[in-house]
Amino acid sequence: MALESKKDWILMATARSPTNIAVVKYWGKRDEALILPINDSISVTLDPSHLCTTTTVAVSPKFDRDQMWLNGKEISLSGGRYQRCLREIRSRAGDVEDEERGICIGKEDWGKLHVHIASYNNFPTAAGLASSAAGFACLVYSLAKLMNVREEQGKLSAIARQGSGSACRSLFGGFVKWEMGKDSTGSDSIAVQLADEKHWNDLVIIIAVVSSRQKETSSTTGMRESVETSPLLHYRSTEVVPKRILQMEEAIRTRDFSSFARLTCADSNQFHAVCLDTSPPIFYMNDTSHRIISYMEKWNRFEGTPQVAYTFDAGPNAVLIAPNRNVAALLLQRLLFYFPPSTDTELKSFVLGDQSIVKDAGIVTKEDMDALATPPEVKDNNASTQKFPGDVSYFICTRPGKGPVLFTDEAQALLHPSTGLPEVSYG
Amino acid sequence: MALESKKDWILMATARSPTNIAVVKYWGKRDEALILPINDSISVTLDPSHLCTTTTVAVSPKFDRDQMWLNGKEISLSGGRYQRCLREIRSRAGDVEDEERGICIGKEDWGKLHVHIASYNNFPTAAGLASSAAGFACLVYSLAKLMNVREEQGKLSAIARQGSGSACRSLFGGFVKWEMGKDSTGSDSIAVQLADEKHWNDLVIIIAVVSSRQKETSSTTGMRESVETSPLLHYRSTEVVPKRILQMEEAIRTRDFSSFARLTCADSNQFHAVCLDTSPPIFYMNDTSHRIISYMEKWNRFEGTPQVAYTFDAGPNAVLIAPNRNVAALLLQRLLFYFPPSTDTELKSFVLGDQSIVKDAGIVTKEDMDALATPPEVKDNNASTQKFPGDVSYFICTRPGKGPVLFTDEAQALLHPSTGLPEVSYG
Repeated sequence: MALESKKDWILMATARSPTNIAVVKYWGKRDEALILPINDSISVTLDPSHLCTTTTVAVSPKFDRDQMWLNGKEISLSGGRYQRCLREIRSRAGDVEDEERGICIGKEDWGKLHVHIASYNNFPTAAGLASSAAGFACLVYSLAKLMNVREEQGKLSAIARQGSGSACRSLFGGFVKWEMGKDSTGSDSIAVQLADEKHWNDLVIIIAVVSSRQKETSSTTGMRESVETSPLLHYRSTEVVPKRILQMEEAIRTRDFSSFARLTCADSNQFHAVCLDTSPPIFYMNDTSHRIISYMEKWNRFEGTPQVAYTFDAGPNAVLIAPNRNVAALLLQRLLFYFPPSTDTELKSFVLGDQSIVKDAGIVTKEDMDALATPPEVKDNNASTQKFPGDVSYFICTRPGKGPVLFTDEAQALLHPSTGLPEVSYG
Repeated sequence: MALESKKDWILMATARSPTNIAVVKYWGKRDEALILPINDSISVTLDPSHLCTTTTVAVSPKFDRDQMWLNGKEISLSGGRYQRCLREIRSRAGDVEDEERGICIGKEDWGKLHVHIASYNNFPTAAGLASSAAGFACLVYSLAKLMNVREEQGKLSAIARQGSGSACRSLFGGFVKWEMGKDSTGSDSIAVQLADEKHWNDLVIIIAVVSSRQKETSSTTGMRESVETSPLLHYRSTEVVPKRILQMEEAIRTRDFSSFARLTCADSNQFHAVCLDTSPPIFYMNDTSHRIISYMEKWNRFEGTPQVAYTFDAGPNAVLIAPNRNVAALLLQRLLFYFPPSTDTELKSFVLGDQSIVKDAGIVTKEDMDALATPPEVKDNNASTQKFPGDVSYFICTRPGKGPVLFTDEAQALLHPSTGLPEVSYG
């Protein structure tokens, strides 16, 4: 066998996966181990150019154990979630042959081979930007490619789901629904694509990363406590969400921004309402989050029709969605007016991502920010023109994006091709 | 007639009414004009020595119109709520004779006589401490006394309800239930006393008046928007509250502090959850409110059994209820540890109300506050020992108290006995 004859080969695969933001929220599991949700959810996949995880997976007879590095630092793979993903992928592995390099792996061999995994987020891991969604999606996707798993994307999503629930939605680009399913094994609790990223490509997304001194409740703990104690969550999941899912699908299908915005905001607020109805109550939004909502609501009301949708996950960061570039520029002007940087922050480290939105907003220098006019909707109201410098750490301008991709260029790999250990150049 | 023969007499009545804090919340009307609620609510009446409204009502043939002064400043009586209370009381007025002063008013005369009303809160009106509840209760109670209305207290509560919903609960001391009623005229939407103030007289109540830069949504507007837009409110009012009311009645009856605290906290949180589920969302609690809850939850969890109940009305102020003086002293120590005054605030203007609790807490000087030890429940957690000076404006120590009382001492009157105009000495 090739496995025996030549033990120094390393087989690698590198992939990139997007993160996603739910517009109808997932909150609550009916099965903790399999990560089966109590309701469907819908998300928008974010452009991986601005927010993504890159993962290289490698296999070699010379590896003596499974190992993983996240952002260059070794982390334990002993947790059930990693183990479950690895086991599920290995059990579906196919034959791999690389004649040129003399590699021949039969599907029965995968259980004996160890893997090295290196993963890297192009955004701060701890900032509450769904890094685990992108991370597990990328892990499962890259392992599936490496091990020649011939399952359709939906089946892969059910594996990623067992790493982190929302990860299943990162297996697709554009607009994605996670169907809760009925089966007790979770086989039908999978992600399906509602529309690809080109379907509604005018949308612009601006993320406000909000400064916080608070240590947050993990979403795993939070949703377990909500399921156990919130009288409102059951009603939400059984009565409210099913209707909202249909309405949201229709809004996406018809690119009806007003409905999309209304549903997105209402669902975000209801998710946080359920957190508050939990005992002890969970607070993910802080005063800055509340202010962002108030300003957006004021603007929407002033214009008579929704200009912007907002949504907040399990943390204080705001994800703001504008229907097109023009409105996005007006949105960014408002955000920078209310939430300018602290005096020692440079513009280029304050607004990240798609710089063309910054230019459209007429912001070239920090002075342009200081010169921003008071938005008309608050002109008659002194209290509202207060500014809160430093309350937002930075903004990221992005858009809906595509699903996972495999890199064929070996230069993208995060593991050294001959040692199988992390490259130190990134980070 | 006496009315014609001698026109310079003034007949006055002065009463004092307490404020109250709901432990099962009222949020949502089924009839806006009559102020009929969508669920029962239960409150604790607060000791009027620390929080009350004093109102003097006067009637005289020489008054040419109805007039009212609140805290010495004239305010309009043209609003529907005042008009309704005045009309309801006048329609039930009885005969009044004061032989000594030669006054004889037949019940048919009241419609022709104008009233002067002076009202004074012994606490800041704008601080969100239910001043309208105490105010309308006192208005209705004092007018009823002046006009010799022979209705039982429950009937008066139905009149006060039309001024401000929660005012109906301020017609009684101790623990009070506002029964939502069924009748479309509101005749059975009245307050009933569950237990008087002596029933559970160990309880100590500490109010934290939280500093806020936010302009808050009025509760009238807020609850209307919740009724119109919150999918969760209907479920709360029809499914959750009816069970909670029964449990709360039982907890009060048996003086079961653990159940009382659990229900009180859960109901406050659910009320704020519904506010968040409203479109646009309503935020009454701010970061300071959230911190108070987190500290109280941490303490309760550390002790294994609830030490303190918290509840928040339509604003950021916390109302904290301790089972007895010993726990109240420990509670005050914690509050002063986390939320000391700004450097320029004196102790005596920072902790108001029952000073014996302050003494029990071992606080005599400002230095005693600085010397407070870190609470054991946060000792191992550096993040939690952060202090927030100035985030609480002041504290008020109080307890459950009695219902409205009539003052027989004319020196208490807020209107001059010969002019019927406000005395200027108070305020």
